[in-house]
Amino acid sequence: MTEAMRIGIAGYGNLGRGVESALARTPDMELVGVFTRRDPAALRLQGDRVPAHGIDAIARFADAIDVLILCGGSKSDLPEQGPTLAALFTTVDSFDTHAKIPDYFAAMDAAASGGGHVAVISVGWDPGLFSLHRVYGEALLPDGAGYTFWGKGVSQGHSDALRRVPGVRGAVQYTIPAPEAIARVRSGARPTLTTREKHTRDCYVVLEPGADAKAVEHAIVTMPDYFADYDTTVTFVSAETLQREHAAMPHGGFVIRSGTTGAGTDQLMESSLSLGSNPEFTASVLVAYARAACRLHRRGERGARTVFDVPPGLLSPKSAADLRKELL
Amino acid sequence: MTEAMRIGIAGYGNLGRGVESALARTPDMELVGVFTRRDPAALRLQGDRVPAHGIDAIARFADAIDVLILCGGSKSDLPEQGPTLAALFTTVDSFDTHAKIPDYFAAMDAAASGGGHVAVISVGWDPGLFSLHRVYGEALLPDGAGYTFWGKGVSQGHSDALRRVPGVRGAVQYTIPAPEAIARVRSGARPTLTTREKHTRDCYVVLEPGADAKAVEHAIVTMPDYFADYDTTVTFVSAETLQREHAAMPHGGFVIRSGTTGAGTDQLMESSLSLGSNPEFTASVLVAYARAACRLHRRGERGARTVFDVPPGLLSPKSAADLRKELL
Repeated sequence: MTEAMRIGIAGYGNLGRGVESALARTPDMELVGVFTRRDPAALRLQGDRVPAHGIDAIARFADAIDVLILCGGSKSDLPEQGPTLAALFTTVDSFDTHAKIPDYFAAMDAAASGGGHVAVISVGWDPGLFSLHRVYGEALLPDGAGYTFWGKGVSQGHSDALRRVPGVRGAVQYTIPAPEAIARVRSGARPTLTTREKHTRDCYVVLEPGADAKAVEHAIVTMPDYFADYDTTVTFVSAETLQREHAAMPHGGFVIRSGTTGAGTDQLMESSLSLGSNPEFTASVLVAYARAACRLHRRGERGARTVFDVPPGLLSPKSAADLRKELL
Repeated sequence: MTEAMRIGIAGYGNLGRGVESALARTPDMELVGVFTRRDPAALRLQGDRVPAHGIDAIARFADAIDVLILCGGSKSDLPEQGPTLAALFTTVDSFDTHAKIPDYFAAMDAAASGGGHVAVISVGWDPGLFSLHRVYGEALLPDGAGYTFWGKGVSQGHSDALRRVPGVRGAVQYTIPAPEAIARVRSGARPTLTTREKHTRDCYVVLEPGADAKAVEHAIVTMPDYFADYDTTVTFVSAETLQREHAAMPHGGFVIRSGTTGAGTDQLMESSLSLGSNPEFTASVLVAYARAACRLHRRGERGARTVFDVPPGLLSPKSAADLRKELL
């Protein structure tokens, strides 16, 4: 299998750009095209030798692409595009609306099975890598408790919620895990933690001219679902400060399994990520699972899969023998 | 698939006892027998309803056991017993002599394929869980560097080496990861670390009556391979202290991947274990992979496998649909 896998990108926002960049580091994979709903002629790709196409023309590329990486959003893009594209291509995506995963899986499974393809859904770091850590933790320490903490990092959903508050011109929200809560989990105490105890929320907000800061702050900290259940801090900053100090998209978090074996022996498993760029890391995960998806398809598998179904070795460009020799 | 998986244990030392204990926490698996080279009548099992048998009689149980968990040592037990037993049973083992894994894999693959079984080798936390973290790290951050630190924990191999020094009656050795080295790795600097920089070694030694402490200490700290390349501390203690304070078998460690995406964005992945009992945790991993081995065999797979080949979801007693709903 010396031929490079031929990869397409559907959607060219932060995630699509991250995938393009990640593919430049994988000699066994070749980017053959970027597909967009925008005017392809107006797309400024980072690489200079890859063509951009309108997404409507994608069916013509069915024989030219081994895996299509879907880089649209989970809210409206993927539920609509996903099944259509999975009927035509082997796909990988980062669908992350937890509550809707069973429905999305069913739709992708039907489409991929019907088209003779594989669709690996919900790939990234959460869902994705963190999900794996949760499964390993629960399976290896059945007598135990699992915890996931997120941050420090920028939450797009919460930043969007801030921007919908009247009087807010711009905003970034950081989710911050509580060190005391993590320390209690690490102690083996298996605490029951409230939402407020697990995370705090830091908001950096630029006001519209003439907006009432007090009213904006009140609207934020009392907002149900997003902020009311948390200790939330609002800091007003200038548009220049927001752009200069809060434009990056760091994120990360911790998955911890605290359990007991034998006659009450404490055992602790912990995994963490500290990401300079959330979309770039998610893109890296997508690219590794695109490699696995291609191999699963070549093995004859069909239908939808998740990270739980993918043998870890398939993510690596190395052969099984080399992995056993070098990394086992 | 409501019938419990029928499990056998071959070898009843610390690891075998840990497996027996772990199986008491897995309602989908049932221990049907323990097999030993010792006199089975003299074996004191923790559970009271499971029979012990001589290992020579094991062939009679070919139809009564779904997975046999091999709990022998890597030095002499597994290389000899492993292929014989893999010809008769689907097996899981914790073979951990890194340099000999390719040969052992080949022998187990031939035996398991010939017998129509699956043999999952080198299961535990290193090799095993840490190997998985190394593969995920390398595959997700190809532009990066990987590091494994061990400890704080008891190294059986190094403790055994101490006990072979003339004048030593008893001894325990702790491997301790260097905090400074871990901090440098976490900083993203991707340092090249010497053996001495990564770990230190703490030895607790009980002298034979009349032994020369100075001579014993010199023999230890200059011992090639085991101690000469490390900063080694020797503390002489009484037999009572050794028994009271150093009888537990804690261990653990860190796997860290430091890498870069995009135009130089730092990304850090880290996983760690803090284990109250090394053999009990290893046993828990063996039991989860026994579940997976049984499922692989029922799917029709044959031959040797490693943790790299096993889809993570197969480790869990939960269905794929429940895993997607609850843990993805």
